[in-house]
Amino acid sequence: MISIAIDAMGGDFGEKPIIEGVIEALNVKPFNAILVGETEKLKPLIPKHLEQYIQYEEANEVFSMEENATDALKRKETSIYKAIELVKNLKASAVVSAGHSGASMSLATLRLGRLQNVLRPAIATLMPNIESTTLLLDVGANTDCKSENLFQFAVMGEVYAREVMQISKPRVALLSNGEEECKGNELTKETHQLMKKIPNFIGNAEGRDIFNANVDVLVCDGFSGNVILKSCEGVAGAIFRILKADIKQNFLSKLGAVLMKPSFMRLKKKIDWQEYGGAPLLGVKGCVIISHGKSDSRAIKNAIFQAIHFNEANINEAIENELAKF
Amino acid sequence: MISIAIDAMGGDFGEKPIIEGVIEALNVKPFNAILVGETEKLKPLIPKHLEQYIQYEEANEVFSMEENATDALKRKETSIYKAIELVKNLKASAVVSAGHSGASMSLATLRLGRLQNVLRPAIATLMPNIESTTLLLDVGANTDCKSENLFQFAVMGEVYAREVMQISKPRVALLSNGEEECKGNELTKETHQLMKKIPNFIGNAEGRDIFNANVDVLVCDGFSGNVILKSCEGVAGAIFRILKADIKQNFLSKLGAVLMKPSFMRLKKKIDWQEYGGAPLLGVKGCVIISHGKSDSRAIKNAIFQAIHFNEANINEAIENELAKF
Repeated sequence: MISIAIDAMGGDFGEKPIIEGVIEALNVKPFNAILVGETEKLKPLIPKHLEQYIQYEEANEVFSMEENATDALKRKETSIYKAIELVKNLKASAVVSAGHSGASMSLATLRLGRLQNVLRPAIATLMPNIESTTLLLDVGANTDCKSENLFQFAVMGEVYAREVMQISKPRVALLSNGEEECKGNELTKETHQLMKKIPNFIGNAEGRDIFNANVDVLVCDGFSGNVILKSCEGVAGAIFRILKADIKQNFLSKLGAVLMKPSFMRLKKKIDWQEYGGAPLLGVKGCVIISHGKSDSRAIKNAIFQAIHFNEANINEAIENELAKF
Repeated sequence: MISIAIDAMGGDFGEKPIIEGVIEALNVKPFNAILVGETEKLKPLIPKHLEQYIQYEEANEVFSMEENATDALKRKETSIYKAIELVKNLKASAVVSAGHSGASMSLATLRLGRLQNVLRPAIATLMPNIESTTLLLDVGANTDCKSENLFQFAVMGEVYAREVMQISKPRVALLSNGEEECKGNELTKETHQLMKKIPNFIGNAEGRDIFNANVDVLVCDGFSGNVILKSCEGVAGAIFRILKADIKQNFLSKLGAVLMKPSFMRLKKKIDWQEYGGAPLLGVKGCVIISHGKSDSRAIKNAIFQAIHFNEANINEAIENELAKF
């Protein structure tokens, strides 16, 4: 049975939603959960019938969102540091953390190390599209990239889509400002030529292709990835705010909104990142799932399942094999 | 009375929506329209009572969307080339074109020339936010930028927001992957330091800030700007597609949607780029408004009003004066 180190303290809302997520996951599928945090606070949250699946690792510091990722290595008493160490010392096979993503990323890279031939790890995230999901990477770890980095992100993303998302021939594309090969900035034009070596490369794609289900894996630098995530979150939020404000001023619209509520709920569920769990860090020796700081129990439950699938699929071996081909 | 050269042939849907837009604008406000295109096709579209406001400039070629912007200079018989020449020869004060934006941009830069001290012109676009609009620039002209370019985009955008959008102290921000000064890629970190010289600079902003009305002018390189535009278009489109498909399968939702129709229509109008006209090209000697290829008559009408405001506000002089301060 897989052991998963859970950073129980790192999220924006403290230990409660994290532990609830662990309990929800355990109610569906057994695994060993190593809860990293203040044991005394955590113990009372665990129901009796699940105690057999739980271990505790004491950590009484939290790496806060305001700190600089570069300081993570010095903060050896934090829950995220200790969670990563459990993987390093082979006491756990995976980490799930809703803490400081830069800290998770940098600790994983420095303490666990990179996979063979990987220049830089990347954070990959699932974006909902009109049919299913699109894997977007990198979304934050690497703000300045070289074409070799983007090429490797493509290879790693393709393996993840194949092995975990179970898409037999994932369509891999490069984010650019136009579909034509000649479109792009210097970085993407150079990357485009490298990516031609990848059999499933379908060429450049534009921002809109994330959502129209034309692409399975979309590659970009971490700066662009972050801009996309946050802009899209912003648009969706603004649309619902504008609509809500309008409905309030109009009786018939208000009635209509009540009748449409089930449709709105299903839409919300479909486009809600909490449904998709966390973002796997690809390219490090181990499995690190980075969850949103604002994760609720459902997001944590889904991140735990992601960690389980990641391990079952033997992704890291597959990534090393794939990179060795080039 | 201002003379505006209208590229009557460049849009995706031919001359009809363009001429309709001209007529709609003339019905609101008089101006001299110089219609650049196949005169024979255009003449029958003009109603008698408006003939006094119309002149014709024969151009029987169109620069197509598939062509490379770098060829625009050689194609001297195209409607966009001739429209730009009218401004160069002082026969018109502005150009409105729904044609190839790269061609408009490159012809304007090469034939009209750049304003004093401007290194590179930028395309600025209005994005709807929950309260009003945010000016985003650059959105496509400059895929690789230096910090000096972004700095100048900020200065030009600030002037535009002040003089045309009539915001007395526009909040100017730099797009980055985090609000903190230390966040960003190499380009934005360097730019941040330069932008401190701008009195209304409020720091870094994230993708979501375009929509929450925290920022009036948001500066980015043209690659990021294009990615934002297209991603946001993609999200909005996907949300409505998912909702529509769901409503179809549910009688009460369908009824609710009928009742909510006025609210949806108002939302659509609010987030519809056609309402905002075109995107002004900032930094060239003249006024060039670049409209979406798929512009309907309403978008053209609004682009014409933008050209009129642009000229009335004496933007170009203001930009030169502002840049001279640094």
